[in-house]
Amino acid sequence: MAQIKNVGVYTSGGDAPGMNAAIRAVVRSALYYDLNVTGIRRGYEGMITGDMFSMDRKSVANIIQRGGTILKTARSDQFRTPEGRKIAYENLKKNNVDALVAIGGDGTFTGAKIFGKEFGIPILGMPGTIDNDLLGTDFTIGYDTAINTVIDAVDKIRDTAESHDRLFIVEVMGRDSGLIALRSGIAAGAEAVLIPESKTDLNALFHRLEQGRRDKSSKIVIVAEGEEAGGAFEYGHLIKERFPNYDTRVSVLGHIQRGGPPSCMDRVLASRIGVAAVEGLLDGRHGEMVGIVNGEISYTPFENAIKHNVDINPDYLKIVDILSL
Amino acid sequence: MAQIKNVGVYTSGGDAPGMNAAIRAVVRSALYYDLNVTGIRRGYEGMITGDMFSMDRKSVANIIQRGGTILKTARSDQFRTPEGRKIAYENLKKNNVDALVAIGGDGTFTGAKIFGKEFGIPILGMPGTIDNDLLGTDFTIGYDTAINTVIDAVDKIRDTAESHDRLFIVEVMGRDSGLIALRSGIAAGAEAVLIPESKTDLNALFHRLEQGRRDKSSKIVIVAEGEEAGGAFEYGHLIKERFPNYDTRVSVLGHIQRGGPPSCMDRVLASRIGVAAVEGLLDGRHGEMVGIVNGEISYTPFENAIKHNVDINPDYLKIVDILSL
Amino acid sequence: MAQIKNVGVYTSGGDAPGMNAAIRAVVRSALYYDLNVTGIRRGYEGMITGDMFSMDRKSVANIIQRGGTILKTARSDQFRTPEGRKIAYENLKKNNVDALVAIGGDGTFTGAKIFGKEFGIPILGMPGTIDNDLLGTDFTIGYDTAINTVIDAVDKIRDTAESHDRLFIVEVMGRDSGLIALRSGIAAGAEAVLIPESKTDLNALFHRLEQGRRDKSSKIVIVAEGEEAGGAFEYGHLIKERFPNYDTRVSVLGHIQRGGPPSCMDRVLASRIGVAAVEGLLDGRHGEMVGIVNGEISYTPFENAIKHNVDINPDYLKIVDILSL
Amino acid sequence: MAQIKNVGVYTSGGDAPGMNAAIRAVVRSALYYDLNVTGIRRGYEGMITGDMFSMDRKSVANIIQRGGTILKTARSDQFRTPEGRKIAYENLKKNNVDALVAIGGDGTFTGAKIFGKEFGIPILGMPGTIDNDLLGTDFTIGYDTAINTVIDAVDKIRDTAESHDRLFIVEVMGRDSGLIALRSGIAAGAEAVLIPESKTDLNALFHRLEQGRRDKSSKIVIVAEGEEAGGAFEYGHLIKERFPNYDTRVSVLGHIQRGGPPSCMDRVLASRIGVAAVEGLLDGRHGEMVGIVNGEISYTPFENAIKHNVDINPDYLKIVDILSL
Repeated sequence: MAQIKNVGVYTSGGDAPGMNAAIRAVVRSALYYDLNVTGIRRGYEGMITGDMFSMDRKSVANIIQRGGTILKTARSDQFRTPEGRKIAYENLKKNNVDALVAIGGDGTFTGAKIFGKEFGIPILGMPGTIDNDLLGTDFTIGYDTAINTVIDAVDKIRDTAESHDRLFIVEVMGRDSGLIALRSGIAAGAEAVLIPESKTDLNALFHRLEQGRRDKSSKIVIVAEGEEAGGAFEYGHLIKERFPNYDTRVSVLGHIQRGGPPSCMDRVLASRIGVAAVEGLLDGRHGEMVGIVNGEISYTPFENAIKHNVDINPDYLKIVDILSL
Repeated sequence: MAQIKNVGVYTSGGDAPGMNAAIRAVVRSALYYDLNVTGIRRGYEGMITGDMFSMDRKSVANIIQRGGTILKTARSDQFRTPEGRKIAYENLKKNNVDALVAIGGDGTFTGAKIFGKEFGIPILGMPGTIDNDLLGTDFTIGYDTAINTVIDAVDKIRDTAESHDRLFIVEVMGRDSGLIALRSGIAAGAEAVLIPESKTDLNALFHRLEQGRRDKSSKIVIVAEGEEAGGAFEYGHLIKERFPNYDTRVSVLGHIQRGGPPSCMDRVLASRIGVAAVEGLLDGRHGEMVGIVNGEISYTPFENAIKHNVDINPDYLKIVDILSL
Repeated sequence: MAQIKNVGVYTSGGDAPGMNAAIRAVVRSALYYDLNVTGIRRGYEGMITGDMFSMDRKSVANIIQRGGTILKTARSDQFRTPEGRKIAYENLKKNNVDALVAIGGDGTFTGAKIFGKEFGIPILGMPGTIDNDLLGTDFTIGYDTAINTVIDAVDKIRDTAESHDRLFIVEVMGRDSGLIALRSGIAAGAEAVLIPESKTDLNALFHRLEQGRRDKSSKIVIVAEGEEAGGAFEYGHLIKERFPNYDTRVSVLGHIQRGGPPSCMDRVLASRIGVAAVEGLLDGRHGEMVGIVNGEISYTPFENAIKHNVDINPDYLKIVDILSL
Repeated sequence: MAQIKNVGVYTSGGDAPGMNAAIRAVVRSALYYDLNVTGIRRGYEGMITGDMFSMDRKSVANIIQRGGTILKTARSDQFRTPEGRKIAYENLKKNNVDALVAIGGDGTFTGAKIFGKEFGIPILGMPGTIDNDLLGTDFTIGYDTAINTVIDAVDKIRDTAESHDRLFIVEVMGRDSGLIALRSGIAAGAEAVLIPESKTDLNALFHRLEQGRRDKSSKIVIVAEGEEAGGAFEYGHLIKERFPNYDTRVSVLGHIQRGGPPSCMDRVLASRIGVAAVEGLLDGRHGEMVGIVNGEISYTPFENAIKHNVDINPDYLKIVDILSL
């Protein structure tokens, strides 16, 4: 493999807090190792339209604390076609980009895997998604911020739930993964947490709500958006039917979970992984996602990282049961 | 009127941040003037069930910073009947309560007005509602906190909207009043603010969104929940129909707007009005809401306070237009 | 006076949250009225060095929520000399700037008053300072954010003070004004508030601390940095000497009070005043600070605005006494 | 060992956010396993004065989100004497407490180790300290909240530093440990991080500040309070002497770092460890601190946990160097 001289960096898929910290880390460490850096806007879309620009230290000044991504992100249907990828590759060549750092989630890495193989361009991935649903890293960049946003919101909802003796069903993000629901549910002191990885036993849920109702003035049920029965409104309907005398409300937290200044841990995670991604490229690595496992930098082939079978630690569900009693 | 010896205090209607600061102010200032204080739980409901207790300094220690209301709040159908109110009055007499401070909004004051006249018990009101829809005070307790919660949420939504070049329609609270929408819309830099007090010109809205679209990467439209056409989802539908190529999303902020630690201004407002409510009762006042108008304490008869025709300053809508250009 | 075609805008003196919202409002409303806008960096210093640039809509995109000032701010000794001001004026002429909006506090307006008279250039001021120490406006831009930052910090300190039964002396900003101390003291539930406008009676303070100590587990005393006896450490020393068995700590909040995203009210205030400043210039006004008094736009000659005798409402000190009992 | 029937729980040493979540977890899981729970106020001091009370589910309702500790904390000189510990033990016996969960740091565990051995009472510890300076757990309860508080404060300071082109020296907590400084320094984008574990090379620091100064408008140096040369003010002095033309300021963040609502991760950590502590006691464990290492519950003898030689990952210092360039 020829020596790398110019690293392209892009964000793709759903945005996550800490993506800017990740971009900054890639840019600054590439410059530290005397590489050029090319910013690519709107992910694969920008490769195809040629929306690229040279980045220097100042390009990433004062962004570590900002939510969103200065490189923007977008879907690209054209990149799913061989013709689209060909155009993308030619644009990269035109800009002398000879290696890539892809920041995103499973869709991003699926594209990177194919693209890297087709054109022999070395690509390393950084896990940037609030869902924490990738193998090969203990945490994804954005997850910690998202769960803090959730508990801040649920703390507020608890204030009004307590005042009115209400039951709230709160829907959080996580289409295929209950990890946001699980940790935020424990931290919010929720009575129950309903996640796609675990079949909901309605009778057990009703029993729990009834039992607790006797001496608790408010209740919170956290539902992951991907939970089978149809989300928070569906559960709201079922609970109202079963307990018509409860004052039951539904709240869908929505897109606030994607924004805001990244937490300290997300910034540190993005910084460490960003440096390791650049160093990994210089070491000849490619086709892998860089993560942190048990405190150490770890490289996982794209095909393994996106396998989507992140296990739920059963201890967590038990803790919800024990502590909300 | 006999001299007051025991002040009852209650919160009623929708809860608002700063109600605890209001309770604290009433309790501490009543004690300062050597009165006894009786806390009544769940508003008029607690009067009827006799859910009352003696309060001292410590009853309100360390609550000024907490959202919600330690006295809780509830609806009471029974209090709407003469029989219910008779029971309530007898419970107050049994507890030696000879004056009341009612913290809440228009429903609270409507009840207070009738009850005070029927039984000759002096009642003063404190404006506690996030909606800011009462006459006789520049701001209601809870409004400032709510609009800060809204802009914190919209700032987060802006992060993700910018990253994806999206248009977001954000629904905020305010069933009959656009005041939350108006100030938070200016502060969030929204492209448009749709409120019940002003008929929405759909063509003007479309024109504005189209025009701005040319060179703005994201857009925010703030809709008050009471806005005629059916709220954020209805507007989302109309906008998607008109601009099928926009990436349009809807977010309903919901009950987070009712909770959280009260802002500094809400705590100061609650503290000043609480002291003035107790002093007003001692001065023989009754049947009035205590507010702050142009920086000075002001007393407004209940029937005027709840007239619901709070004017919208037309300058504000013009400012949205000028600044989001 | 010739018609205005090009408005220069600058920030000067200590920075305050909301200055960016103020700049945005000036730029966007000037463009709305078909004026050109010139941004001047580092206040009077930038006039002298000629650090100016043309601003358009995009120059102020996505800044309404940011602390600090994108135009930066600095002291300028040279501007205090007639020679310095001559250079400044010539640079303005060279850039075709024929009117100015000055965002800052008393130092800013003192400079603006002299400069405007010397060269006949119309200048209007916007009150941007966390201290709230200007006449002609109920609130200065930045004050509301600063007092919210203070109570957020004191809420945190209260957590640890409660846990350890400690007395904390917390120093807040306000060199010549106790207004930050006063409102944040009420809102933080402080036992005492010591401000430059009111002579501190040490015996009364000791009495208060002793009395309260009997049944309160923690205590907070708020001291304005300009308070006579030498600030928080001096009071810490006196209190430790008088009450050697108290666990007394000092915390100086410092520069966190100048930063952070501006509150909703500060953004609205900056937006309204910014529009009014541009409209005022178009109406031929000059030599005045634009403020909001009792909800309405108000214009005050610079010499009156900076008179520094903002009265302290004695009610506020009484409220501290009553409510912390 | 006889079967455990009544678990006593206490917090001791410096308080940390998440201690209330820890108490809640111990109480609720002990009740889940049909044990009685005794709360002990002010740590070892409360054992000696007999300040204990029976706790039920409601004793810990609605506290998971609160900073501080509802059981309070204090130093106890008397507990350092055999006579003091004898009294403590007799008070525990009188209250039928036959096992203990100690929440705190090294001082807490040193006391627990001696006490447990002297009287054969089983004690397990939970790591509650913002300093993260214990072996046997990846993170201590409170650390994550503290570093988030630090970066929130430094983000605010950066706003004003940028506006004035200033250099700020920010002192954070960590008397013997630079771990707060290190992670928050990376996350705040600091130019340099000075910690007790690594000797500061003044010339290198000066070189770094000089080099960066050329094209960076603001600078942040993070200093751990335990750093050798005497803290932030001493460094401020040295830097002002070396760079008289820099506008250099010092800010000591102080006790805000100990308070505030715990972060999601701190609440989850406290919840998991609390359940494991009770389960560990039931399994016959004693004399150990319960922690989480690489995601799994881990038990470490007290004498090892407090060894105070937590290693600093050298990668972190290198990351500061690379990314602040």
